[in-house]
This record gives sequence, structure tokens and C-alpha cells, in this order.
Amino acid sequence: MKRFTGIYTPIATPFLRDGSLDEPSLRSNVAKWMATSLTGLVVLGSNGEAASLDDDECDRIVDIVREGVPQDRPLIAGTGRESTRATIAATQRAADAGADAALVRTPSFFKPQMTSDAFVRHYTEVADASPIPVLLYNVTLYTGVNLLPDAVERLATHPNIVGMKESGGDIAQIADFVGRTPEDFTVLAGSATTLVHALYAGCDGAVLALAALAPDACQRMLLLVKERRLDEANALQRELLPLARSVGGLYGVPGLKAALDLLGYAGGEPRPPLRSVSSKIIELLSEQLGSLGLISSSLR
Amino acid sequence: MKRFTGIYTPIATPFLRDGSLDEPSLRSNVAKWMATSLTGLVVLGSNGEAASLDDDECDRIVDIVREGVPQDRPLIAGTGRESTRATIAATQRAADAGADAALVRTPSFFKPQMTSDAFVRHYTEVADASPIPVLLYNVTLYTGVNLLPDAVERLATHPNIVGMKESGGDIAQIADFVGRTPEDFTVLAGSATTLVHALYAGCDGAVLALAALAPDACQRMLLLVKERRLDEANALQRELLPLARSVGGLYGVPGLKAALDLLGYAGGEPRPPLRSVSSKIIELLSEQLGSLGLISSSLR
Amino acid sequence: MKRFTGIYTPIATPFLRDGSLDEPSLRSNVAKWMATSLTGLVVLGSNGEAASLDDDECDRIVDIVREGVPQDRPLIAGTGRESTRATIAATQRAADAGADAALVRTPSFFKPQMTSDAFVRHYTEVADASPIPVLLYNVTLYTGVNLLPDAVERLATHPNIVGMKESGGDIAQIADFVGRTPEDFTVLAGSATTLVHALYAGCDGAVLALAALAPDACQRMLLLVKERRLDEANALQRELLPLARSVGGLYGVPGLKAALDLLGYAGGEPRPPLRSVSSKIIELLSEQLGSLGLISSSLR
Amino acid sequence: MKRFTGIYTPIATPFLRDGSLDEPSLRSNVAKWMATSLTGLVVLGSNGEAASLDDDECDRIVDIVREGVPQDRPLIAGTGRESTRATIAATQRAADAGADAALVRTPSFFKPQMTSDAFVRHYTEVADASPIPVLLYNVTLYTGVNLLPDAVERLATHPNIVGMKESGGDIAQIADFVGRTPEDFTVLAGSATTLVHALYAGCDGAVLALAALAPDACQRMLLLVKERRLDEANALQRELLPLARSVGGLYGVPGLKAALDLLGYAGGEPRPPLRSVSSKIIELLSEQLGSLGLISSSLR
Repeated sequence: MKRFTGIYTPIATPFLRDGSLDEPSLRSNVAKWMATSLTGLVVLGSNGEAASLDDDECDRIVDIVREGVPQDRPLIAGTGRESTRATIAATQRAADAGADAALVRTPSFFKPQMTSDAFVRHYTEVADASPIPVLLYNVTLYTGVNLLPDAVERLATHPNIVGMKESGGDIAQIADFVGRTPEDFTVLAGSATTLVHALYAGCDGAVLALAALAPDACQRMLLLVKERRLDEANALQRELLPLARSVGGLYGVPGLKAALDLLGYAGGEPRPPLRSVSSKIIELLSEQLGSLGLISSSLR
Repeated sequence: MKRFTGIYTPIATPFLRDGSLDEPSLRSNVAKWMATSLTGLVVLGSNGEAASLDDDECDRIVDIVREGVPQDRPLIAGTGRESTRATIAATQRAADAGADAALVRTPSFFKPQMTSDAFVRHYTEVADASPIPVLLYNVTLYTGVNLLPDAVERLATHPNIVGMKESGGDIAQIADFVGRTPEDFTVLAGSATTLVHALYAGCDGAVLALAALAPDACQRMLLLVKERRLDEANALQRELLPLARSVGGLYGVPGLKAALDLLGYAGGEPRPPLRSVSSKIIELLSEQLGSLGLISSSLR
Repeated sequence: MKRFTGIYTPIATPFLRDGSLDEPSLRSNVAKWMATSLTGLVVLGSNGEAASLDDDECDRIVDIVREGVPQDRPLIAGTGRESTRATIAATQRAADAGADAALVRTPSFFKPQMTSDAFVRHYTEVADASPIPVLLYNVTLYTGVNLLPDAVERLATHPNIVGMKESGGDIAQIADFVGRTPEDFTVLAGSATTLVHALYAGCDGAVLALAALAPDACQRMLLLVKERRLDEANALQRELLPLARSVGGLYGVPGLKAALDLLGYAGGEPRPPLRSVSSKIIELLSEQLGSLGLISSSLR
Repeated sequence: MKRFTGIYTPIATPFLRDGSLDEPSLRSNVAKWMATSLTGLVVLGSNGEAASLDDDECDRIVDIVREGVPQDRPLIAGTGRESTRATIAATQRAADAGADAALVRTPSFFKPQMTSDAFVRHYTEVADASPIPVLLYNVTLYTGVNLLPDAVERLATHPNIVGMKESGGDIAQIADFVGRTPEDFTVLAGSATTLVHALYAGCDGAVLALAALAPDACQRMLLLVKERRLDEANALQRELLPLARSVGGLYGVPGLKAALDLLGYAGGEPRPPLRSVSSKIIELLSEQLGSLGLISSSLR
């Protein structure tokens, strides 16, 4: 049986003025998302600024979010680290704190050595040791390495590796992931700018920053593709494109946080060296949210 | 006055069978290097597998190495992290443990946001807070981002930023760093395959994995360029090229560790997902070391 | 009304032993293709080795092929050159020889100067002067430049620019071409490895080397997408993938010519510096053609 | 004995208002260059817009320029084409018209097939057939392919292949060309922004657009390196850098032609799709020429 299908969002991590974790805001954000059509949440993803958090903060975040996410809605935690041993430790801690699955980003520092063989060994050891199901996570934009279909094909046979998230927009590669993995292996799209194309190619859902802002539209896209309403799905994709670009690679985490602020969530400032977006970009985001009906014109 | 000129090596980190830090081997390696012509050591660099070490290990390593490096030989510690606050904390800990300078790798996870402005703010805050001099560190092969001359030019005016290490082989960029920074700003080369060209362009020295194996040859290169003996310098570069490639990008840390084993240092296994090189590559390294006279043929 | 929808193949150019044009083989190949389900033919495309033909040969080829292609089946001729004036001249000659439309590859030699503005001026002047409709042609794999959606959007308003061929596999860009051009602007896919995804994104057909070998399968793909039979379409794409890769970037024109030989067409040797593929690749192509039922096992 | 050492410029091709070749201007330009310290001229290079010229124009240009270049100063003609047979034909025509050597750009259209083996066969056939010595020509910026050291090493043994021009700025690759070819094989640099570094690495001279504007400075650079005056050479390189960038990749042929106009040569408009640079860039070029003392301030 396929698990973890649906629409997820990799939630942002709010900080206080002094730069430390803003726990109350995190709780209230989660409560708001739980009132939406989102299937579940991903914590400690790229958009959660996991790369800039220390281990104690990571543990605390999983704790807090698990309290706000009911058991029947999946909570996935990012646990990738550069070394296999640190990844295993982080995965075990996330499991202890109640995560339903671990989303494990490829190690990437030693790029020339990150071959398919290295990835297969790394993920196999992590999955062997993990108390919870493992999802592979390929995010070339941020890591500079690519988890290739041949590695995924080999890893998909591991009983504790149940799926993957592919954040890139190479549809041929996504189709290859779908075509070379078993029926019960979940492939989740991670790029909102190519969402509809990834779904046509066979993805079972998506983990999208955009879904934090427009969960209904993302769920609707899933439905339109399921019902083979291609014209409507393509039209919806075109509508979503400007905002999808803004909170994707273009303005990144700072863009997502500014958009969250505009929607009444606690976005706030990212952790340096990331900085808040300019007021001009906030205005652009406001227009994009408005044209999708996500904020009323009176609020703009 | 220019500081930190000369030839340094970014030392490897030896591990025990169980994967933990091998402190005695680290001590004995340092003692051996201190008996060579090396100017000083860099700990917690890319070749030290810093990306795969936790903070406690990092602190311990600086402590141990400082004990073995006399005060009149520079000890530089890698302290780069993804967030500015974690970088500052790591830098302060390295200073407490006795490092003479901090080599601060660019943050790199959020690549599209890592603009020159972001780098200038990051390094300025780190240098403001650091008790010891800061060296910028650009290593695009591993980070996927590039610290551009315009950012370096702006940062070189900071009183606590005294130099940089550039690990790439783009000589025009290196010449730009030299040309656009003050006389007392140290530019160190990080690529052994282009060492002679970087020195012609004005570098004041180098931080090289190769220097752990062939310190005399690296010091000789510095001298040949100083004395304008270009034909000899170019010939030496050609001689060093095969080994330089092997312990550079080609076989990386596993290659360096295998070469150290061959020379009687404690290299050992890298921390997974890195793996030891094959016996075929060990043989190749042995030949390359032999042809440079670094191991006698009887040992091969 | 949309023109030039359907499935086309960019025909190979057969040569005699002495390297000159093999006119009888060209005629017999065309006759064979005219007996298939292909919508029409493209001559002097990348796969026709246009880059290696002189102007006289180009003129002769259009003449010969036009004789073999009835007026109710479209004949499109590649007429791109590096200079605007040479492109206009080639287009006029192709029109004189009876081509129904000109497929005009982007100029690409002076890459840094090939901006959207430069492309808009180039294509506008060509379209102004052309007696026949113009199709834009973007083939980044071979040219190293990319014709961006903003340029296409501007050019699509020209009354004599009726469509385009995009040979790349970036589906988001293809969707952008479809979304930003008028209803009657034809977008043709040029990459067989991503054919189904390009059709989902709204392409009206394709110009494919693969279609020279498997015209029925390509036409069937068009139908499956039209009828929204996504599972069958995705399955067909997976079936076609190995051969699509072989006669695409992997073995290129030499691969296509070897496959044509296997199917009883006159493929022959490409013009040097291209060389025939090895016997090992011929065997592989034979297997791939066989597994698609394009050659019987007795022939293999 | 090494041939073709020294400083050459790849001359621009002037056009009349109607777009045809401006023969009188070409003659007068050549006469002016013959009054400078330039070693010789290259016609039909990238900067000569060879890609946009037809064969008749090419022949005419070699004829005219040969008349203006005395026999004791080398005239090199670009003769590269996409096919081997067309390259041979162009080389024979250039030899007939009096060129002293042929500069043969790599074919590049079918990029995935342009392997070292393909290049070796292409150049061997061309050199076998050529009545004049052949120089290899690697210009990755414009071709998108790279002629690697292993191919050059093999080709350098051919008696009729006497040298090469490398237009890129990868100094390690240039050093490899020098190190792996015989003593009498000439390596010419083609990038003015890295000229000094290429000379340190062992280049015997250069073919530079910059040399059309600043021949004395380029000759002086050659001398400074020969005399091992590295500080002066590096300083001169820094001085030349802004103009070198402008007439290199940045503004390309249009930039070079505008600079020629400013110096009293006949530059004029490039052939479309290339267009003249803006007045703002002309002003910048004027400043750059002025600060090098190439035009007096009264002329600016």
C-alpha cells in the first residue's frame, strides 16, 4: 500500500527577535495549517532552514509540531546530515519525538565522491537503522548533487525506504523514478513550478512551500490530474506559476516567510546570512497572493 | 604586515574502527608534520572532513593539535557553518582552544540567496565578533557558490579580515583577488593542480592537501617563483600534477588518507558516506608518491 | 487555424561512397516514408546534417524531396544560417523549391550577443522577407543558446511566424511557450525522450528522428494524449525510451542512420567528422527496434 | 624551429551600408596595422565574423589582405567548417590565395559526437590535405566544445600541424597543452583577460582582438614575461583588463568594431544578427582606450 500520498508543506521555522526559536508562533502556525486541506506537514526541510538549526532546536521543533499534528495526519521530519552516523542519530531522535517518517536529504559536501554507490550505501545504512520509514530527498538546487534513477531503483527495494521527494523540475527524471520503482513506492514532487507535469508523469503528491499558502489549489491540482482534466490542470498551473516561482528558487525562504506574514501566519525574519526580502518584493508577493484570492484586496 | 604567508596543509582527521576520533593518531600525525618544512597547519578544513564532525569533536581536535603545534607556527582552524550565529560560536570556540586564525568557508546551502551582499554581511558580523583574525574561504567545488572579487574587495578593508583561501583554479579570479585587495591582505591558493599559476598571479602561499605529502616540493615552488625561475617552476608543477590531481578533486579525502597511510602517517578510513579508495587507486598513489621520491621503491 | 500540427520526421541525408549526395536513395527513402502514417517531412534539419551541406546540395535536396511529397502533405525545410542575410536567402530558395514552411534554427555562434532582442530582430527580418510561413527552431543541445519564452511571445504575434519547434526537454519552458502564444501558434516537440510530457503541456505535435523509425507509435502517442489516456501514454513513452535515447543525443545522426539501415531505408555513412556507430551499437539498435516490433526477429 | 610565435590580431571585417564587403576599408585597415608592431594578421577568425561570411567573400578577403601583408609577416587564415570536406576545400582555397597557415576551428555542431577521436580524425585529414601548415583552434565560448589535451598531444605529432590557438582562460589546460606537445609546437593564447597567465604557462604568443587596438602593449607583455619581470607584467595585465574584457566576451565583435572606429580604423556595423553597441558602451570604450593612452583626451 502506498503511503504518504497527498499534499504536504515544508513548514518555515519562526524565530524571535534575538534569533532563537519562536515556539508560540510555531504552535499557532501549525494549528492554522491543521485547519486547512493539507494532508500533512514536513518539518526540518530546506524551507524550515534545517541547515541553520542546531540539533537541540531540531528536536524541540519535532516535539512541538507533533503535539499539534493529530496522529492521523502524517508528520515527516527532515533528518539528513553530511555523515551517515549523524544522519542515523538525527533520524532516531526524530522517531523518538514522534515523526511518522524521515525525509533524508542526500549528503552533498564531497560532490565528486557522491556517486550512486555512495548514495546506495548511505541510504541503506540509514534505512537499516531507522525506526521509521525513510523517504529519499533529492534537492539539486541546494545540494549541487543529483540522486540518479539507477540509485533510486536499487534503494526502492529496501523495505524501510517507502518513497522519495524530488525537488527538481526535470520531468524525464521524475518519470524515470516512477517507472523504475515498485507500485507502492511514493514519489513526491517538490517543485511547484512544474507540479502539474510531475503529476502527469505519475507523482503521488507533493511537498511544496506553495502549499503553505495555497493548500486548496494544490489539492485541486491533484484532483484535476486524477480526473484527467488536463486543460483545467494546465490552466491552474499557469495561474499558480508567478507565486510558485516567488516562493521557490527566486526569493526562497525569505520570500516564503514574507508571504506567510501577509497571510496572517508568523513568518518573520530568516536566520542570517538569509535576510528578509525588500518591501518591493513584499508588494509583489501581495499582488500574487491577491490575484489568487488568497488575501482580499482590502488587506493589500 | 602580511600574515599567514607560506605553505600549510589542511590535515586529515583520523578515526578509530568504531568511527570515533582517533586522538593518538592525530597527535602522532601532527608531531610528524611539525618535523617537516610546513609553515603551519589548518585543522577542520574540507580535507579534515569538518562537514562530517560534530561540534564536540571539532573542539577536541583544535585542543589536541594546538598542543602539538608550537606558538611560533600558525594553527588555522576551519569554523564555517551555514548560519552566521553558528559560525560566530564555532569561531569563538576555536579561538578559546588556541587557534591563531579562523578559516571561514562561505555558507552555501541557499545558493540563489548567497549574493555578494549576503556574504559581506555574513563575514562582517563574523569578523566583528571573532577574537582572532578571519580568513575568507572560497571552495566552489564543494559549496557550489562563488565568493566574487567585488565581495572580497569590500571585505578586505575590515581590520579583522586578514586574508583568504581560494580553492578554485580560475587564475583570472585569483589575480583579481590579489589586484583588488590591500598589500597586507594574504591570498592563499588551495588548488595544487594550479599552484604555480596562482603564485605567478600573486598568491602569498597555499593551503594544500598535497603539502601533507610533499611539503618540501611545495615550499620549493614558492621559492622558485620568488626567484623568478619560471622554467624550473613550470617543470616542478608538471611533475607534481598527477599526485596533485589524485588528492584533489579526483579521489578527494579518501585519496589523501590512502596516500598518508603509504607515507607512514595514520590516514585510515574516512567517515561514511565517504569510503576508502580501491586497491587499484592505492597502487596508483604509490606509484605517484614513488616517482616523486616520497617513498622508496623498496616500500612500494 | 493551427497549421503544421502532427508528427514529422527530420529526414537523414544519404551520401554516396565518394561523400556526395545520394539522390536515388533520397528519393526511395522519401517514397517509403510517404507510405507511412507520418504527417509530413522536414528536410535540412539537424538530423539531415544541414550543418555539413553546402547551399547547392540544400537546394537539390528540397527539389528532390518536394517531388516525392504530395502537395497535401507538408514539407518543411530547415533554412537557418548564422547571418540574417544568409538565412533570408536560404529561406527564399527553399520557398522557390516548393517548401511549405521554413524551420529557422537560431543563429548561435556569437553566444554572448544572442539575446532575446537579437533573436526578435533576426526572426522578424526573416519572417518579413520570407514567402512562406516561418517556424522558430530552438535546439540548445546543438547550438548552446536558448530561445526564451519572452522572445517567442513577442515573435508569435508576427503574421508570418506560425509556430516553433523546441528540441529541449525542459517541460516548464515548453508549457511557457504554449501558455504565452496565441491559440493558432503551433508548438512542436523535438525531443522523443520527453514526448508525452511535451504533449501534456500542450504541444500540437512533434518533429522527431524517432518518427522516421516508429511513425505509428508517435502518432498513437498523439492520440492517447488527445483522448486523455495517461496511463497508456506514459507506458508507451517508457517503451519508446531506449530507442528514443539512442537516436537522440546519445548516438545522434550516426545512430539514426544505422537504425534506418536496419529498417531497410538507405541510411549509410554520415559526413565526417561524424562517423558510423560501432557494430556493438548497431546490435543494440537492432534489439531496441526488435523489442518495439519494428524489425522481425528473423531479420536480427 | 618554432613558427608563428608573436602577437597577432584577428582582424574585423568591414561592411558597406548595404551589408556587402567594404574592400577599400579592409585595405586601409590592413595598411594601418602593417604600420604597427604586430607580428602578423589573422583573417577569417571569429572576430572577422567568418561564421557570417559566404565562401566567395572569404576568398576575396584573403586575396585583399595578402596584398597588404608583406611576405615576411605571417598571414593566417581561418578555414574551419562543420564538415571535414568543406574544411579541406576552404583550406586549399586559403592556401591558393596566399595564406601562410590555416587556423582551423573545431567543428562543433554535433556536440555529443565531438570526441577526441573525432577531432583527431578530422584534423588529421585536414592536415594531410592542406598545402600550408595547420594551427588547431579551440574556442569553447563560441563552439561549446572543448579540444582536450589528449587530442592535442596526439595531433601535435603530425608534421603539418605546427601549433594551436586556445581562446579559453583555463590556465591549467593551457599549461597541459604546452607540457604535452613538442618543443617546436606553437601555443598561442586567445584570451586577453588571461594573457599574462598564459604566457607564464609557456605560450609563445597570442592572437588577440585587443592587439588590434593595443599592439605595443601586447608585445610589451611578451617581453616582460620573457625577461621575468613579473610585477610589471602583472601590473600591465591589470591595466589592460577593462578593455580586454570589453572587446572579449562582453561586447564581442560589436565592441571591437566600435573601438576600431574610435581609433580611426574602419570598424562599422557588424553583420546582423549582431548589432552595433549602444552609445553608452561607445563612451565606456572611449574611456578605456583613453586611460591606456590609445586615444588622446582631445578626441574623446
